[in-house]
Amino acid sequence: MVAAAAIGVCYYPEHWPESMWADDARRMREVGITRVRIGEFSWSRLEPEAGRYEFDWLSRAIDTLHAEGLGVILGTPTATPPKWLVDAMPDMLAVGDDGRVRSFGSRRHYCFSHIGYRRECARIVSELAKRFGAHPGVVAWQTDNEYGCHDTVRSYSQSALLGFRHWLQARYGTVAALNEAWGNVFWSMEYSSFNEIELPSGAVTETNPSHRVDFDRYSSDQVIAFNKVQTDVIRARAPTHQILHNFMTFHVDFDHFAVMDDMDIATWDSYPLGSIDVFERDLVRKSIYARTGDPDLQAFHHDLYRGTGRGRFGIMEQQPGPVNWAQYNTDAKPGMIRLWGMEGFAHGAELVSYFRWRQAPFAQEQFHAGLNMPDNTPDRAFFEVEELSRDLKMLGDMGTAAPARVAIVYSYEAQWMLREQPQGRNFSYIDQVFSAYRSLRELGLDIDVVGTNADLASYALVILPSMPYVPDAFASALKAFQGTLLVMPRTGSRTRSHHIPDNLAPGPLADLLGIKVTRVESFRVGSAVPVTYDNETFRFDRWREFVEVKSADVIARDGDGHPALTRKVRACYLTGSPDRALMERLFGRLVREAGVETQILSAGVRMRGRGRYRFLFNYGPDPVEVSDYLKGDIVVGGKRLEVGDIAVAREAR
Amino acid sequence: MVAAAAIGVCYYPEHWPESMWADDARRMREVGITRVRIGEFSWSRLEPEAGRYEFDWLSRAIDTLHAEGLGVILGTPTATPPKWLVDAMPDMLAVGDDGRVRSFGSRRHYCFSHIGYRRECARIVSELAKRFGAHPGVVAWQTDNEYGCHDTVRSYSQSALLGFRHWLQARYGTVAALNEAWGNVFWSMEYSSFNEIELPSGAVTETNPSHRVDFDRYSSDQVIAFNKVQTDVIRARAPTHQILHNFMTFHVDFDHFAVMDDMDIATWDSYPLGSIDVFERDLVRKSIYARTGDPDLQAFHHDLYRGTGRGRFGIMEQQPGPVNWAQYNTDAKPGMIRLWGMEGFAHGAELVSYFRWRQAPFAQEQFHAGLNMPDNTPDRAFFEVEELSRDLKMLGDMGTAAPARVAIVYSYEAQWMLREQPQGRNFSYIDQVFSAYRSLRELGLDIDVVGTNADLASYALVILPSMPYVPDAFASALKAFQGTLLVMPRTGSRTRSHHIPDNLAPGPLADLLGIKVTRVESFRVGSAVPVTYDNETFRFDRWREFVEVKSADVIARDGDGHPALTRKVRACYLTGSPDRALMERLFGRLVREAGVETQILSAGVRMRGRGRYRFLFNYGPDPVEVSDYLKGDIVVGGKRLEVGDIAVAREAR
Amino acid sequence: MVAAAAIGVCYYPEHWPESMWADDARRMREVGITRVRIGEFSWSRLEPEAGRYEFDWLSRAIDTLHAEGLGVILGTPTATPPKWLVDAMPDMLAVGDDGRVRSFGSRRHYCFSHIGYRRECARIVSELAKRFGAHPGVVAWQTDNEYGCHDTVRSYSQSALLGFRHWLQARYGTVAALNEAWGNVFWSMEYSSFNEIELPSGAVTETNPSHRVDFDRYSSDQVIAFNKVQTDVIRARAPTHQILHNFMTFHVDFDHFAVMDDMDIATWDSYPLGSIDVFERDLVRKSIYARTGDPDLQAFHHDLYRGTGRGRFGIMEQQPGPVNWAQYNTDAKPGMIRLWGMEGFAHGAELVSYFRWRQAPFAQEQFHAGLNMPDNTPDRAFFEVEELSRDLKMLGDMGTAAPARVAIVYSYEAQWMLREQPQGRNFSYIDQVFSAYRSLRELGLDIDVVGTNADLASYALVILPSMPYVPDAFASALKAFQGTLLVMPRTGSRTRSHHIPDNLAPGPLADLLGIKVTRVESFRVGSAVPVTYDNETFRFDRWREFVEVKSADVIARDGDGHPALTRKVRACYLTGSPDRALMERLFGRLVREAGVETQILSAGVRMRGRGRYRFLFNYGPDPVEVSDYLKGDIVVGGKRLEVGDIAVAREAR
Repeated sequence: MVAAAAIGVCYYPEHWPESMWADDARRMREVGITRVRIGEFSWSRLEPEAGRYEFDWLSRAIDTLHAEGLGVILGTPTATPPKWLVDAMPDMLAVGDDGRVRSFGSRRHYCFSHIGYRRECARIVSELAKRFGAHPGVVAWQTDNEYGCHDTVRSYSQSALLGFRHWLQARYGTVAALNEAWGNVFWSMEYSSFNEIELPSGAVTETNPSHRVDFDRYSSDQVIAFNKVQTDVIRARAPTHQILHNFMTFHVDFDHFAVMDDMDIATWDSYPLGSIDVFERDLVRKSIYARTGDPDLQAFHHDLYRGTGRGRFGIMEQQPGPVNWAQYNTDAKPGMIRLWGMEGFAHGAELVSYFRWRQAPFAQEQFHAGLNMPDNTPDRAFFEVEELSRDLKMLGDMGTAAPARVAIVYSYEAQWMLREQPQGRNFSYIDQVFSAYRSLRELGLDIDVVGTNADLASYALVILPSMPYVPDAFASALKAFQGTLLVMPRTGSRTRSHHIPDNLAPGPLADLLGIKVTRVESFRVGSAVPVTYDNETFRFDRWREFVEVKSADVIARDGDGHPALTRKVRACYLTGSPDRALMERLFGRLVREAGVETQILSAGVRMRGRGRYRFLFNYGPDPVEVSDYLKGDIVVGGKRLEVGDIAVAREAR
Repeated sequence: MVAAAAIGVCYYPEHWPESMWADDARRMREVGITRVRIGEFSWSRLEPEAGRYEFDWLSRAIDTLHAEGLGVILGTPTATPPKWLVDAMPDMLAVGDDGRVRSFGSRRHYCFSHIGYRRECARIVSELAKRFGAHPGVVAWQTDNEYGCHDTVRSYSQSALLGFRHWLQARYGTVAALNEAWGNVFWSMEYSSFNEIELPSGAVTETNPSHRVDFDRYSSDQVIAFNKVQTDVIRARAPTHQILHNFMTFHVDFDHFAVMDDMDIATWDSYPLGSIDVFERDLVRKSIYARTGDPDLQAFHHDLYRGTGRGRFGIMEQQPGPVNWAQYNTDAKPGMIRLWGMEGFAHGAELVSYFRWRQAPFAQEQFHAGLNMPDNTPDRAFFEVEELSRDLKMLGDMGTAAPARVAIVYSYEAQWMLREQPQGRNFSYIDQVFSAYRSLRELGLDIDVVGTNADLASYALVILPSMPYVPDAFASALKAFQGTLLVMPRTGSRTRSHHIPDNLAPGPLADLLGIKVTRVESFRVGSAVPVTYDNETFRFDRWREFVEVKSADVIARDGDGHPALTRKVRACYLTGSPDRALMERLFGRLVREAGVETQILSAGVRMRGRGRYRFLFNYGPDPVEVSDYLKGDIVVGGKRLEVGDIAVAREAR
Repeated sequence: MVAAAAIGVCYYPEHWPESMWADDARRMREVGITRVRIGEFSWSRLEPEAGRYEFDWLSRAIDTLHAEGLGVILGTPTATPPKWLVDAMPDMLAVGDDGRVRSFGSRRHYCFSHIGYRRECARIVSELAKRFGAHPGVVAWQTDNEYGCHDTVRSYSQSALLGFRHWLQARYGTVAALNEAWGNVFWSMEYSSFNEIELPSGAVTETNPSHRVDFDRYSSDQVIAFNKVQTDVIRARAPTHQILHNFMTFHVDFDHFAVMDDMDIATWDSYPLGSIDVFERDLVRKSIYARTGDPDLQAFHHDLYRGTGRGRFGIMEQQPGPVNWAQYNTDAKPGMIRLWGMEGFAHGAELVSYFRWRQAPFAQEQFHAGLNMPDNTPDRAFFEVEELSRDLKMLGDMGTAAPARVAIVYSYEAQWMLREQPQGRNFSYIDQVFSAYRSLRELGLDIDVVGTNADLASYALVILPSMPYVPDAFASALKAFQGTLLVMPRTGSRTRSHHIPDNLAPGPLADLLGIKVTRVESFRVGSAVPVTYDNETFRFDRWREFVEVKSADVIARDGDGHPALTRKVRACYLTGSPDRALMERLFGRLVREAGVETQILSAGVRMRGRGRYRFLFNYGPDPVEVSDYLKGDIVVGGKRLEVGDIAVAREAR
């Protein structure tokens, strides 16, 4: 888009007197910012009543930024439809799983399935693209804002019901085929017409998981279709502009790979402190990293979104200090604002854009820090961004993210299937993926997170987390893969219709793995199963499978003597959910066997390579010696790496 | 019904190609199965559209089973009304306490109060009975399936409202009588017409407990009436067939004694591993018994349902491996599938029927194990059932359950009254009953669980758990009882209208017990009250009463010097909620005083007598010596009893 | 009202046969009772159908009480509108935040905004005042009952919506002014008409906090207006009678200071055991004081309601034994019924009225103890009240509450603003206020709790808990104040419209305090920040601010070196939330510097002065020596003060 490694900022000219704009733009440039996102919540200002467009203020704002050489990323305002539009079309409001209409007064109140609202979006985006599609100050467009935020992907509205019925008809053709695919005979749930089908909500007990998984797929498809309405309009009128969206943390309700088919760059919103407060369940870890964020969470998303973006990604919103939306909102340890930004670049980001230029003194986010305080004096983040800008100048052209030898295969559909029928309450796809990621990264490895369409040829090791449904094409790719493959439990345990396969799990991978899964169990941590591997005892901590070994070697056994790890040539299968220690031991052995070097990192120290540079980050809790980790010329940082600090080496090799 | 001690299985021919049926039937017979339950969820196949009956497939299925000598238990399909019926009569759907209609998509979506739906049930059951009432392959009928499952007894629909008003009019005659009975003057809740009365839901704060208890009674009565619609039809057309229903674990929302007035045999659905996961609150105990189930839970229900069934009971669904519906679904320790079955027989079961023949590869229960895997290979349960079948052959005719010398009196109404006004959040009728049961059983005793109509003459000791309302007839029975009586707190503390009696608690038992209760308190475990008994200190752990002693002896006192246990002749009263240690000590003393022998059992070892046999079961965690527990000839098992194993002795005495 | 120090009781003649009334009245007099509250839930008896008044029974009841010299406090019955009225005007029912109508069947089901219901209240109160306004037996009126109980202040009904729109129009004049005041540009939340505005409920995520705070203010104003409808009617027809309302524990949903503008005496309902069960989060403390109540909770409310009542207050309902509404309902330790009563008098109460005369044997509160049991025998409370009455005779005229040298400023609006945007989940205004109160009281101090209109001149130390919006008049009062002022964090951080002030926090107090707050953070207990003060280490346990010191001294610093306590002349600012130890140390030093003597009290021992008397109370857990605390002649009690006992000294000084 945008640039090789640009610093950006999110800016709301509509919140401030026009008299401040020029000074804002000047100071942005001075601090090293080159990209500015604007406009994404401003519909009520762009169109104060139906059909009355007021774009001049926006034009003047873009001109002002452009005058300082800043490239504008223009947000479409569709995440906040104004009240007059909602009142004119009240059935555009989403409906919750509780049956209540989700009302006006905040944001994201629309239903993705509502065709009328899609038309309104096409209209406003079209008008914007008409006016700004050729503006030299505009470099890119952001569609909407944070699809799915506040649990908004699935809606239970009348629009969604009708849309779902059509979608099912297109998918199954006949209702008999649907009855068969869902197994509706089970509890007399058979339908005689698509018009009889309802949304999976409000039933007495669990609805059919095939029904729910299809509703998950349908809902994901609506996000894709909704987004495409906008990209089509923008492509038509602003063909040279890049298009992106700002994705979120651990958000899984729609298929980001599929959305990216219509987009240029994947960006995401990185809030390390808010995220550790929301997502970390270990209270000790939550406390240790409360003011730095989790050492792996940001990196994971960088690698994931680089994967969904086919190599192109950025951070659209980077936390600049305390936020307002977590249960507890700590301040960042000094240095972290810079560190988080540089870590993005180290993973290959083209853009790191801070949210926001100036703290808003009103409305929902007044507690959200910015680069400047509400009284317009620079806050600490301002100075850290300035330092980051100086760092970037020193590094010059960094090239692209260093190629990884290890990949994790990631699937949104796997997440839906496991969520809809978890079988054990503690079974979480995303936990498993992130645990695997952490374990690999603590070995000092660069990692790719890829979809099922990725070319696997360059990897020494591929980890396949639990993927219930393995499409045929992907099964073939796995069979063709020449490196080491580690398959985690539950893989291949379901068909596309969410049935158990005729040959039982691992279904299409049965021959590749040489096993058959005959029974599974889930359990609490108190009932964990010991596993002996590499002469030590580890644990399956929540899941165990019993397998019949057809043509594989048994590498490890559980405490009851059942196979725990099998291997057939290069394809390994783990029969349970490994604890972190087993993951690290196993991954370490597999990767070293494959000839990849590892380096055990201490606590919060992490590394990543981009181009000829190797970056070192210290999330704490203790300072470390740089020479223990980096070789070559140190171009950023000194000998000792304090908590919150960065070191960068130009590598000889 | 059925047989003296039959093994059965639940089977769904409609889920499988007809070509598999004959082989299924043959293998059932070979493994020792003699009874097969079918049909109970198949309405959409029996009547695919209104009035179009398709019974031929069912007839062929029954024929196929009958050809192998298997007796069919035919389930009425009324737990799963099909979509066309719901769409034709949408107000038949139940309504939740949250005011939402409980929608189609799973099962049990009907409202018990809906007269139109009752008519539809009569119709379909009548057609089935017409067709199969004289079929030689059918031996019994199961009405509906698991009444009350998924909290479906109480519905807040318009049908329920109108039904409740009629029921109240019939009960009270005049609204003035109702106002008096409920004490409606209290907060100006007086009504001037039955039509003003609403369901006890959605109010600002607690509604009148008399109102709620009457709604509990009304709702229970609807289950009874709903069931009787079906039994009347079946009796008319299949007069020689037995009728049963499959009851549930710790389910208390309707009066099972009353339902059984119209039935022949009480059966229940026994899921030891799912149940311990759902019901056990002690995490250590939950972990120890995660793969065996609680050592007393199954036995308690055997004894309870033998009581509700006036001596005749069975297990309709017996867990065969992991289930799908608990938070965590562990696999059974080897041996337990057989053990649970034999334990049912030891308590007098006529039938132990496993659920299900083959694991379903689709819909809600695909994670629920069966005797066979989805690919039709036998699972472990298959072989354990085979072994159970061999055991049974060795035992021959076992006679009936051995007569118990100790009884616990059980009351559904007591449960409702205590739930509607618990006064202490940890006060649970069912907990108290089950704790008492466990304590008695750990003393090696055979126990009866009986209703208030039971003949108490043969018992040495009767335990009366908290029963707020003591009907006059039962009070007379207690006065006439010649054995030892232990009355637990809160008994006699309410009238039928849920008032405090004029003479205060224990109301009609005041003379029998020689005390008056003047004040009560509830408390958290941290505020427990010490009790000195038998020279040791125990605790009242959640409830204490202050009593005025009129004509009783004080046997024990609490730490503040108040009476803790009183005795007048043979009638004892406990003034608080005893901890488990106090229960065991006290019950042990009372029962031995009454001349009944006890034997302290270790951890998970349990015993039961049937006919001349005495059965020993080991739920673990450790192996034990059989000779420590059993005398006489060992006819099943060896000297040492492993965890998950069984021993049976033919007793000399 | 009423008397200098009267004992009262709550009585429900409508619950009992008229034949009992005379004996009840006689025994009330004998036990020392002089005031009786009646009538407040009796609408269905006063007006059994629309327009048919039946006041004779009430008149006879009042006559009966009057005949024994008892003064009646007559409750208006508006908390329990009868069914016929609700059915005639169904939209008078309140609507919950969940969108459900809150239905008939308990109490407080009306919506404060409903004009029709206000008219009905005016009518029934007018009829009552007409009949009893001149009755010599009536001394006072209680309006309604426990405004706000069961979360009833805020309603989401159509009446509330329309009322809110009118209220906003009156407050802002134009919708443009409202958009500006709320900052609606933020997420395109701008309105073009007041008719577009909805209630802040059901939105996808957080609504605008300015919107919510205005709805809190609106809802509080409806309580005030609702109450004034009744006081206007009563003043007109009973001009010599006192008017009061019975407030609640830690209830904050309406502005009690504002309601008291139309009232004579503030009374409240004191339930020490129910309250500790509901409000105490520390389980150890909850257990220690389970049977005595929290040593400070009652006192805090006495001082608060004495403040809202401008010096005049009482207890309308005093717990007499176990209640029915907490999770656990313990019995009181012997002596506490008397102690709680005397503690009320010690703090200046004019009335301590016990709830209720006789335990009701029916309906919702049958587990709530009374002075008499349901069978009309006296319960323990009866005898403790008798003893309290003898104590009072010994003390004679006690004068008024001793003047306090320390005040805490209390604000309902502060509570709303902090609740609507807490920023840290553990941040609680009421917790902070109560912690400060406890810390001061453990220093043996008499304390005033006052509003922003209070005259501060007499105080040596004023504590200002977090008050986001500081009105100009109050800022001026603080500047003029000559004593020591301690300001707690977040004070002055918002404008009236809930914006961050232009000069940032502490806004209007910037010059007085000499600081500017530049950033804030909230955190869990595990991330607490050490603070060094007075050579010891304490903690900020949930909140920290970073301040720029303009013209103040830094008295203490946090562990990162940031200012923790600043002081400019006599105005101190604490930059974080102090733990209890820091509060006690800091308050102790400040108060002693100001020349006020302190005395550290042990565990549950507490003191208060009234007139020339000093009272000592022992909440436990251990007995103490009276001479360690009291000087002068001991007029009540002995040398040793047992748990649950009282001592009173006539002070020499």
